[in-house]
Amino acid sequence: MDWQASVGLLGTGLKYLAVTMFVPLFVAVVYMEDIWVFALSIVFVTTLGFALERIDTDPDIGPREALVFVSLAWLTAAVVGTIPYLLAGFGTSSTLADPVNALFESMSGFTTTGATVMGQISLEQHSHALLIWRQLTQWLGGMGIIVLMIAILPEVAVNGAQLMASEAPGPELQKLTPKIAETARVLWLIYFAFTLMYIAVMYGLHLAGFAPNMDLYNAVAHGFTTLPTGGFSPQAESIAYFSAAVQWAAIPFLVVAGVNFALFWHVLKGEVDVMLENTEFRAYAGAIAVTTAVLSLLLVRGAAPPLDIGGVTGGVTENTFRQAAFQIASLLNSTGYATSDFAQWGTHAQVFLLFVMFIGGSAGSTGGGVKVVRWLVVFKAIRRELYTTANPDVVEPVRLSGSVVDEDAVRGIASFTLLYILLFGFSAVFISLDTARIGIELTTLEAVSASLATIGNIGPGFGRLGPFGNYLFFSDASKMLMIFLMWVGRLEIVPVLAVFISVFDRNQ
Amino acid sequence: MDWQASVGLLGTGLKYLAVTMFVPLFVAVVYMEDIWVFALSIVFVTTLGFALERIDTDPDIGPREALVFVSLAWLTAAVVGTIPYLLAGFGTSSTLADPVNALFESMSGFTTTGATVMGQISLEQHSHALLIWRQLTQWLGGMGIIVLMIAILPEVAVNGAQLMASEAPGPELQKLTPKIAETARVLWLIYFAFTLMYIAVMYGLHLAGFAPNMDLYNAVAHGFTTLPTGGFSPQAESIAYFSAAVQWAAIPFLVVAGVNFALFWHVLKGEVDVMLENTEFRAYAGAIAVTTAVLSLLLVRGAAPPLDIGGVTGGVTENTFRQAAFQIASLLNSTGYATSDFAQWGTHAQVFLLFVMFIGGSAGSTGGGVKVVRWLVVFKAIRRELYTTANPDVVEPVRLSGSVVDEDAVRGIASFTLLYILLFGFSAVFISLDTARIGIELTTLEAVSASLATIGNIGPGFGRLGPFGNYLFFSDASKMLMIFLMWVGRLEIVPVLAVFISVFDRNQ
Ligand SMILES: [K+]
Ligand SMILES: [K+]
Repeated sequence: MDWQASVGLLGTGLKYLAVTMFVPLFVAVVYMEDIWVFALSIVFVTTLGFALERIDTDPDIGPREALVFVSLAWLTAAVVGTIPYLLAGFGTSSTLADPVNALFESMSGFTTTGATVMGQISLEQHSHALLIWRQLTQWLGGMGIIVLMIAILPEVAVNGAQLMASEAPGPELQKLTPKIAETARVLWLIYFAFTLMYIAVMYGLHLAGFAPNMDLYNAVAHGFTTLPTGGFSPQAESIAYFSAAVQWAAIPFLVVAGVNFALFWHVLKGEVDVMLENTEFRAYAGAIAVTTAVLSLLLVRGAAPPLDIGGVTGGVTENTFRQAAFQIASLLNSTGYATSDFAQWGTHAQVFLLFVMFIGGSAGSTGGGVKVVRWLVVFKAIRRELYTTANPDVVEPVRLSGSVVDEDAVRGIASFTLLYILLFGFSAVFISLDTARIGIELTTLEAVSASLATIGNIGPGFGRLGPFGNYLFFSDASKMLMIFLMWVGRLEIVPVLAVFISVFDRNQ
Repeated sequence: MDWQASVGLLGTGLKYLAVTMFVPLFVAVVYMEDIWVFALSIVFVTTLGFALERIDTDPDIGPREALVFVSLAWLTAAVVGTIPYLLAGFGTSSTLADPVNALFESMSGFTTTGATVMGQISLEQHSHALLIWRQLTQWLGGMGIIVLMIAILPEVAVNGAQLMASEAPGPELQKLTPKIAETARVLWLIYFAFTLMYIAVMYGLHLAGFAPNMDLYNAVAHGFTTLPTGGFSPQAESIAYFSAAVQWAAIPFLVVAGVNFALFWHVLKGEVDVMLENTEFRAYAGAIAVTTAVLSLLLVRGAAPPLDIGGVTGGVTENTFRQAAFQIASLLNSTGYATSDFAQWGTHAQVFLLFVMFIGGSAGSTGGGVKVVRWLVVFKAIRRELYTTANPDVVEPVRLSGSVVDEDAVRGIASFTLLYILLFGFSAVFISLDTARIGIELTTLEAVSASLATIGNIGPGFGRLGPFGNYLFFSDASKMLMIFLMWVGRLEIVPVLAVFISVFDRNQ
């Protein structure tokens, strides 16, 4: 295991991260805010980057080193990303002046989770620069995830036998181009294009008079957190702060963010049928359609009371269907934006949303969670097990879109899904007990959603950690656990834990 | 598929079931209660048994027929078991006069679940005979499970290749004796002996003056529901109706009911080390010890308020530890007796109990749930997956007690566990939505525990379906779903669903 190679590569990554900090620096200049927070951050991160790079100037990255690099990359970004929060918060009443809170917020950003420990989200209390940095961390995180999912993990798998079978995005992904760099470039372009399109649509609505609150700052800020299924907003009211037109216009982008980005490359080449015939895409679209219909029915039947945030739902009204469609598009693929305070809906509607949050995005998207393709393989594997029990002489492979799924991949996916569920369950129990320890009794829905919203990189939960609540009241122990969950959840769990196992074994 | 053979064998089973009805008939005579309920039931069931037996007088049972027989056996017993409830309830205000309720109660009995829809559990409202029948159904159900788990399923697996790999009690069970009948006889003797021992201890405490309420009727009644991890009680207050001495004395029997009965056979032969070195036994005992310690700590720290049923806990008192030890011994292996109204404990303590309820008994015991050996295999399989991700060249089997677990068994266990969790989750959501439909908003804990307590054959849940509540208020749709969950849960899910798949395929 060549740790130095991994760390050397991290140094290079940090230099790029420092460059991105010119965005909030630029915003600070535009709004005539304090520029020292980001100027100092840039100096510090750049210096650290050069120093780490020196450890191995010509890193040789094998499968194990890739695992370590991937695991450390998000951890390092999260740690370094706290610097602006700590500097800006120093000497103020900002909750982000606390190191654990800053790390929580930073990890929540880079993992595109969107759970927050900010006491007050407001452009009065925080600078435009700091809040755009918070948004930017999610856009950077999403960018990293795309290249990780589609370019890095499958490539490493080729070198290292079945190394990545379990956490590769899905068994049916074909490589788009022969080279990692080329693949990454194409996918980033798609990601970039959708982001620009989102900003253009939103700001266009503003200029056309349909979205009074959606100024350029807000259009960019939300452009940074939509395609990465991030969900952070500089507005305390999230997307409820904006007009119905904005909410409807956002829904297609939310849906797109959960689609395998490789499919858009096929669409661009005119191969629309590749997308339409993709099993996972159809399942994802079908899941959104069915769950939106069910939630609409629940809301039509009066599942939600009249709300300050979310308005009056019930009966066949525009708002009823908008709230249903928006919340499903946002929660199913782990984005976490809200246009209604769904934490105040009837419990059965919240239980239904919790169920929806288990689904996740598509493989090769920025969406978190178990992901649609894994559920498909799990269902098919269970069906196969039942069939062979009744027909013991039959040997049947699991198929997806007509092709046979490798048995190692089936095994890896079953292991991943069980590991996800177990980590989720144990963490929910821990959070419940630990929070009772500090004198706060969580409801079951709160405890369960705290665990699921962090390991699934979703963001909001229910009750006090609902879309307009926050995670501030948790103990440091629970916050550290949730930081861990966001981290491993974003990296498909297996790579990080495999590194732990390696380190552990080495010490034996 | 020879359906007639399965049905013919069912007829024979019904004749034996009719014979067991002489027990409540005898009780009716002793207490000078109405004898017609059971006299008529005996006539009816016997007639039905002879009629079905005629369909195939010399049934030839292959692997598929065994699957169908097993699936139909519990269903038929549950349906036939409603007859006394319906006859006794006819023309009265008994909730069991309703056919769905009667089927719920009967299925809950034969599957050793212990969930109840009796509006009022009381010897004033119901006869001694009827309540002893309710207890007896659990004892018969437990008897059936033992022989199914240890004798039938593995034998069928030998005939039908890997047919039963997924639902066989565990990969390491060695057959005790060469013949099914002999194995069954030995295990029934152990079951019978423990039952008698329980009755003797309880009635002994009564005679010695330590258990005023534990008369012979109660001793026998609870003897019928302890070893099968049943949990039904003719007393509305369950075991809280009895003295502390009874509660302490019951705990070892509760623990024993979750142990693989085959291990006791080794103990009887003087091979105590076989039990002590058994991985599952150690894990089961360890899980009880650790969770009892955690729950004790929670109760010592004041997790429960002073209760009418359960008394005052908190601090280091006898009652604190008794309540912790009893509830863990009862809930971990799916028995479901209660000595405290734990539905009124702090939510975090209830969440912890919910977690404990996921563990289940040992394979080859009467305990329900996922079962300890499956969790062990799942943990080891996940660990293996992580290890081979970091070390792609290593091929490593899953081992249990030193021997290699067959990969088909690992696959089957992973499928079972995922299927269990998925059925549990979908059902919890359905129950939540369906109950809101009839105007009752369940808490998340209630919805989740309704699903878990039925598929895991546990019995009590939390909130309104806590140990001193009941399932009466649910809609017929939810009750039917729960009847289904108790049924498939008790039969290890796979055999029943495999039959469904077979029938479905035949129609294609
Ligand atoms: K998110
Ligand atoms: K039970």
